[in-house]
Amino acid sequence: MGFDEKIAGLAEGLRELTIQRRRDLHAHPEAGWTEFRTAAFVAETLTNLGYAVQIGSEVVEEQAMMGVPAAAVLAAAAQRALAEGANPAWVDKMAGGKTGIVASFSFAKPGPTVGLRFDMDANDVTEAADPEHRPGSCGFASQHKGVMHACGHDGHTAVGLAVAEILMDLQAELAGTIKLIFQPAEEGVRGAKAMVSKGVVDDVDYMLGAHFGFKMKHTGQLACNVTGFLATSKYDAEFIGIPAHAGAAPETGRNALLASACAALNLHAISRHGGGASRINVGTLHAGSGRNVIGDKALLQLETRGATSQINEYMAGEAARIIEAAAAMYDVKVKITEMGGAAGGNNTLELSERVRTVAKRLAIFNDIVATSDFGASEDFSYFMERVQEKGGQAAYMMVGADLAAGHHDSHFDFDETSLDYATKILANVAVDLLVEKN
Amino acid sequence: MGFDEKIAGLAEGLRELTIQRRRDLHAHPEAGWTEFRTAAFVAETLTNLGYAVQIGSEVVEEQAMMGVPAAAVLAAAAQRALAEGANPAWVDKMAGGKTGIVASFSFAKPGPTVGLRFDMDANDVTEAADPEHRPGSCGFASQHKGVMHACGHDGHTAVGLAVAEILMDLQAELAGTIKLIFQPAEEGVRGAKAMVSKGVVDDVDYMLGAHFGFKMKHTGQLACNVTGFLATSKYDAEFIGIPAHAGAAPETGRNALLASACAALNLHAISRHGGGASRINVGTLHAGSGRNVIGDKALLQLETRGATSQINEYMAGEAARIIEAAAAMYDVKVKITEMGGAAGGNNTLELSERVRTVAKRLAIFNDIVATSDFGASEDFSYFMERVQEKGGQAAYMMVGADLAAGHHDSHFDFDETSLDYATKILANVAVDLLVEKN
Amino acid sequence: MGFDEKIAGLAEGLRELTIQRRRDLHAHPEAGWTEFRTAAFVAETLTNLGYAVQIGSEVVEEQAMMGVPAAAVLAAAAQRALAEGANPAWVDKMAGGKTGIVASFSFAKPGPTVGLRFDMDANDVTEAADPEHRPGSCGFASQHKGVMHACGHDGHTAVGLAVAEILMDLQAELAGTIKLIFQPAEEGVRGAKAMVSKGVVDDVDYMLGAHFGFKMKHTGQLACNVTGFLATSKYDAEFIGIPAHAGAAPETGRNALLASACAALNLHAISRHGGGASRINVGTLHAGSGRNVIGDKALLQLETRGATSQINEYMAGEAARIIEAAAAMYDVKVKITEMGGAAGGNNTLELSERVRTVAKRLAIFNDIVATSDFGASEDFSYFMERVQEKGGQAAYMMVGADLAAGHHDSHFDFDETSLDYATKILANVAVDLLVEKN
Amino acid sequence: MGFDEKIAGLAEGLRELTIQRRRDLHAHPEAGWTEFRTAAFVAETLTNLGYAVQIGSEVVEEQAMMGVPAAAVLAAAAQRALAEGANPAWVDKMAGGKTGIVASFSFAKPGPTVGLRFDMDANDVTEAADPEHRPGSCGFASQHKGVMHACGHDGHTAVGLAVAEILMDLQAELAGTIKLIFQPAEEGVRGAKAMVSKGVVDDVDYMLGAHFGFKMKHTGQLACNVTGFLATSKYDAEFIGIPAHAGAAPETGRNALLASACAALNLHAISRHGGGASRINVGTLHAGSGRNVIGDKALLQLETRGATSQINEYMAGEAARIIEAAAAMYDVKVKITEMGGAAGGNNTLELSERVRTVAKRLAIFNDIVATSDFGASEDFSYFMERVQEKGGQAAYMMVGADLAAGHHDSHFDFDETSLDYATKILANVAVDLLVEKN
Repeated sequence: MGFDEKIAGLAEGLRELTIQRRRDLHAHPEAGWTEFRTAAFVAETLTNLGYAVQIGSEVVEEQAMMGVPAAAVLAAAAQRALAEGANPAWVDKMAGGKTGIVASFSFAKPGPTVGLRFDMDANDVTEAADPEHRPGSCGFASQHKGVMHACGHDGHTAVGLAVAEILMDLQAELAGTIKLIFQPAEEGVRGAKAMVSKGVVDDVDYMLGAHFGFKMKHTGQLACNVTGFLATSKYDAEFIGIPAHAGAAPETGRNALLASACAALNLHAISRHGGGASRINVGTLHAGSGRNVIGDKALLQLETRGATSQINEYMAGEAARIIEAAAAMYDVKVKITEMGGAAGGNNTLELSERVRTVAKRLAIFNDIVATSDFGASEDFSYFMERVQEKGGQAAYMMVGADLAAGHHDSHFDFDETSLDYATKILANVAVDLLVEKN
Repeated sequence: MGFDEKIAGLAEGLRELTIQRRRDLHAHPEAGWTEFRTAAFVAETLTNLGYAVQIGSEVVEEQAMMGVPAAAVLAAAAQRALAEGANPAWVDKMAGGKTGIVASFSFAKPGPTVGLRFDMDANDVTEAADPEHRPGSCGFASQHKGVMHACGHDGHTAVGLAVAEILMDLQAELAGTIKLIFQPAEEGVRGAKAMVSKGVVDDVDYMLGAHFGFKMKHTGQLACNVTGFLATSKYDAEFIGIPAHAGAAPETGRNALLASACAALNLHAISRHGGGASRINVGTLHAGSGRNVIGDKALLQLETRGATSQINEYMAGEAARIIEAAAAMYDVKVKITEMGGAAGGNNTLELSERVRTVAKRLAIFNDIVATSDFGASEDFSYFMERVQEKGGQAAYMMVGADLAAGHHDSHFDFDETSLDYATKILANVAVDLLVEKN
Repeated sequence: MGFDEKIAGLAEGLRELTIQRRRDLHAHPEAGWTEFRTAAFVAETLTNLGYAVQIGSEVVEEQAMMGVPAAAVLAAAAQRALAEGANPAWVDKMAGGKTGIVASFSFAKPGPTVGLRFDMDANDVTEAADPEHRPGSCGFASQHKGVMHACGHDGHTAVGLAVAEILMDLQAELAGTIKLIFQPAEEGVRGAKAMVSKGVVDDVDYMLGAHFGFKMKHTGQLACNVTGFLATSKYDAEFIGIPAHAGAAPETGRNALLASACAALNLHAISRHGGGASRINVGTLHAGSGRNVIGDKALLQLETRGATSQINEYMAGEAARIIEAAAAMYDVKVKITEMGGAAGGNNTLELSERVRTVAKRLAIFNDIVATSDFGASEDFSYFMERVQEKGGQAAYMMVGADLAAGHHDSHFDFDETSLDYATKILANVAVDLLVEKN
Repeated sequence: MGFDEKIAGLAEGLRELTIQRRRDLHAHPEAGWTEFRTAAFVAETLTNLGYAVQIGSEVVEEQAMMGVPAAAVLAAAAQRALAEGANPAWVDKMAGGKTGIVASFSFAKPGPTVGLRFDMDANDVTEAADPEHRPGSCGFASQHKGVMHACGHDGHTAVGLAVAEILMDLQAELAGTIKLIFQPAEEGVRGAKAMVSKGVVDDVDYMLGAHFGFKMKHTGQLACNVTGFLATSKYDAEFIGIPAHAGAAPETGRNALLASACAALNLHAISRHGGGASRINVGTLHAGSGRNVIGDKALLQLETRGATSQINEYMAGEAARIIEAAAAMYDVKVKITEMGGAAGGNNTLELSERVRTVAKRLAIFNDIVATSDFGASEDFSYFMERVQEKGGQAAYMMVGADLAAGHHDSHFDFDETSLDYATKILANVAVDLLVEKN
């Protein structure tokens, strides 16, 4: 019996468990840097499977963590995780929101190091309560108000655990090392940088990642080469002015509201780049304290993107200068904080092609697409960039799934049979790489 | 014994009661249109004194009420008032936030009708908790979080009740009719128009109003002719666009955030007016729903002002056109709602002069100022305008008070001995007018 | 025979000559700092009358000259003046555009120093060529294309010469000193500062100025106290960016056009001032060099104004900061040049009152207005401010004249009988002051 | 002897004449729609060679002419052409600026129709006068101030005449029809649409165009497939407001200057397009008439671009709405005029490949590039689009040339040996197509 059949059998044996795990995670969603319960469960499971598990400050570089919630938020989330059954020993190790995990296992025979990355965090979305929304009707809707797995990371995590078990089952036949990376805070592209900075993929030869859905909207589809990763930077700009009575002495105020409005307009007017796609978005603007008071404070949340890291750097540089100048224009203070970021970049075509070869061989997909344009940002790009810099290969695939609604929508849900497709393709590609030297 | 001495005696007899009442009101502040407890107490007290009391829809025109809170907010405030001892019979009559009161009494002899107006509402301010803030240290700090009497209307109401009692005590010697108007929602200049529209001052010959503080910052000061009432209009502008993913397909969005930012800037660029002072302020701007989403909604709170009603109309007209055009520019929808307003206008100099004559005669003020520039808005101007249109006279005075901090500041407090000064000058001027025909 | 009759007789004797002179000046208009022919004629005439004439660098401070035309323009204007008969000896003394004149005469008896100021420059306007435009039909239309006396300074200069002759005729009866100041470049308020800086009015006890027209639109009117002088500053802001092909590599440009547009909008959004009237105007904006090129240069011409010098300083300070910040926002260079300015200020009421007393006594005016709001800027204010600072008195009056069209209009013309009114009131007030000690 | 050798011989025989013609055209440059002398010379030469020449309204659709100069400018240019020796018979036929020419010849044998397009117009640039600028030192600098061949169209036209002569020399051996199109007004992409609208390429099977320089900066280079044609639209937006005195009554003005500044900023803030590259440029902005006058008129010159015609239409639609809204915002009028445009599009790869095959065979180029990104606009795209719509093929090539300075620079000049390269490749490709059926 070849690997294909063996993996198929193992994956099907795990099918129900994977669905159960996905539903449990869906019911207990945790936003970026607060995945205490999720990560504790992952760490426990992988330890039990025989993996060497590193967690917390061992795999997360504090300096490079972006967009971390306030200490009180972290504390409340940790308490909730404990109340919902998380093992305190693991939770302790994740102090400060360092909820990343690296689980490794070196097979007996020498061989390459293969990395797989799974993201674990949920969105700041309140799940729909309609009767026709399946998570509700099937009893696994989010129990955390304002937080929801609306992007499928619950499925990613469950698939990661299934792949981990399959590889362990096949250990006798494999060579090299497997590294399973469970990443926090992918939403807002805040988490990958901190793990990459810690060096967790510096020794990886082949790096794989995957996502459900996006333009692959039907179960059975697969895109082997996801292109168009936009490099991105996320910033908060906080303007501080001076309030004044708008009728009696407006000239004594310093208008942070107008500074922020001026910044927003001029940010969107940053020149396009002749070298490729660029983006700018001021997504939120909150300013002022009362109708008859000169607006003395303002907060902008913005992001830049670029087809390449270089174009994104151009955009980010322009943005910073414009924000500073808008503050100067209205004689107010401003503080810019980096809240997230992702690199640009492209798959290693050789590895994408290998994924395609494996996928064709499996003959389980009804639609294999060579290339799919992502047109958005994913901080998997940091892992990809680092591995490629070190001479390795990286590829990111998109696994089709029938979707109930678009990503980040409160009605988001995906066809759980796609969990099986994802488990099989990831396990097969990993095995293909880990038997390479045979 | 002349009226001056009699009134002095009566006022001094009420001094402690007035301070107590002011402190009770201070501890139980109610924002505009939610003055259920305050108004019930006023109505009860005036009824007991012998006044004919009209309340609710008898004296408040629903169509002309501006900036009324949501039904749920009104309901919660009414419940709180009942819980804090308000008489349900009065509260029932104020359904929908119609918390205005007119208390009248016609003296035996014929004579003019004299109106006095007192405002009752508190501010949306959380009272300071510092130990040195006297309301806290003396035990009468606000018990309602987020609401505070930070403008002195608690004092105005207490003074109104004292004046009511004095005039009733002197009833045998007076001629004509007294009308005591207790107005809701002066903050945001939202309440006066609804009472004026109902016709409550259509028969008034002399209209008086007063305020503590402002530029009269020391107890014992009095300004007899307050000038520079700025006409004003308050608007909310709500922009509705279409969200879109800022990376993948930004062109499919309709950017309400940029529309609102564009409106804010161009509103502040409305041309100055050669005819006199004008003002514009976009006081708050809240827009967008997420960093990586094209901002699909925005809310602006703004106000215009003018030295005359005509200049304010110019400003308001320009503002409306600019807001509509900003929406058109970004292809979003916009809805403009009027949230408040006040007329411009000036005191009747003859009546101000009469106030000054009375003040000099009393010899209790250490600093009597003929004219004080207000430079802000007060919806007393609606009463003033209507009475003057009907051929009557109107005057507004400023009663000095040592202040702990500026108006609307969380540390605002005033010297309570000024309550006595206010009671005396208002009672004396009223009596002076009500003995006219003798 | 009293002074009134004597002056009336002398003025009427000069009536035709004054009209002739005004028409000659009208036909040969000279813009600010190029009044070579006009000033040479004035200097020649006053010298012939017996005045001590100072001209050029004796009375004009080079550092304080604002908005001086390029050397080539000055040279061409001087050539034209010579070609039109100006005395080269005078023209030589006005090198560099220093076309100001001070003509003094000290009477035998001691007494106060009385200054009168007349402005000589024309506007950058092309005179209307319609048959019904009187200067054309009467043969004295501008012979200098693009330049026109459209504000009446031709009349002012002619009146100044008539007053000079009358005072000299009466010299035996007068005391003190008369100083006649003929100022260049009042348009754009560029010239007064340079004469004041030179100290020409430091010894003046009574300073008088006058203007035809404005709100006094009918011959026979007189306003004795002109109020509402707006302090003003005039600036040019020149932005220098970097051009780039707008299609191929727009990001390599530095957009001076957008910097200037951003500056214009935000300049108009400078907060109103609670202390009184303020103004801002970006009057011209010229930017860019081609449709498909990132705009690499821009020129803004702007002005600020204020009811007081202090308010104007606030406006000018805000404007400078905004312009610098707009340049920083677009990463372009900017150079701000001061092009003109006038102080704010008010007449000395005692002197205005004296003018009114004289005017009433003469009984030639059909409408004497105590106060007329100017609502604009006049650099006479610099003379006024300096004289008042030194303890003297200053007053500015408005002499009514039937107007064919508004000031600065290509159809502007005024009723020449008003020349007679102006001559009489100025001569009479001067004499009133110069016989004071008698 | 094969065609390659024959053509090489003919081309080399014409080499000196071609350089002479290019220099004569360089010395007498004519801007778009005023190429009276150039076109008369082309028409005369082609007629003499035996071509059937159509000119003026036969080949130019008046309705579709964009950016035509004023009648007086056309008249002056025609006069100048006559004065410089143009044949009046041809000039007469080009009334109204219709300076386009189509020269056709059908060979004896049936075959395809091959179109070649050459553009004839010069730039609005004043040629550099430095001694080291070769056109000056060699005596063929522009004799028309403000006009210069700074893009190489003089060379294009000279090459077109050489190719015309070669093909006629080879007529006995060729099949099908040759159509030589000499197009006016390529600068500003104003001319092609009017010839395409007239149907001049409706019967063309193979359409060829070429340009000197751009990214092919060295003589001997050739790019066979020029990609990245940006669709583009050119607009003028003229704002008309109402002037007012900025000090006395600014509120009575209607500020066209601010409307145009507001439009400029918001135009540059048009959202990027997820479907591909877009561009916007407000290249010039001229507004206002005087520093102290509310700016009553403004003119914007702008352009939009897009990677596809669809994206450009999105940009142009957004631009129109924004301009209209900016006018509404400031209550001014606006008129938008289309001044030019080009389609997007791509070469027919089969034809580009054929060009490459021919180029390789010739073995005269030292660097043959398969693909070169243009990243700009060329209205050859209109010809390309129409021919492809009708089922034909089209290709545009770039012929390398050592450049003295970039295109549109006043120091632009190109190595004249590149004329020979261009003649040979165009003649050879044409012949390759015209012997197809043999």
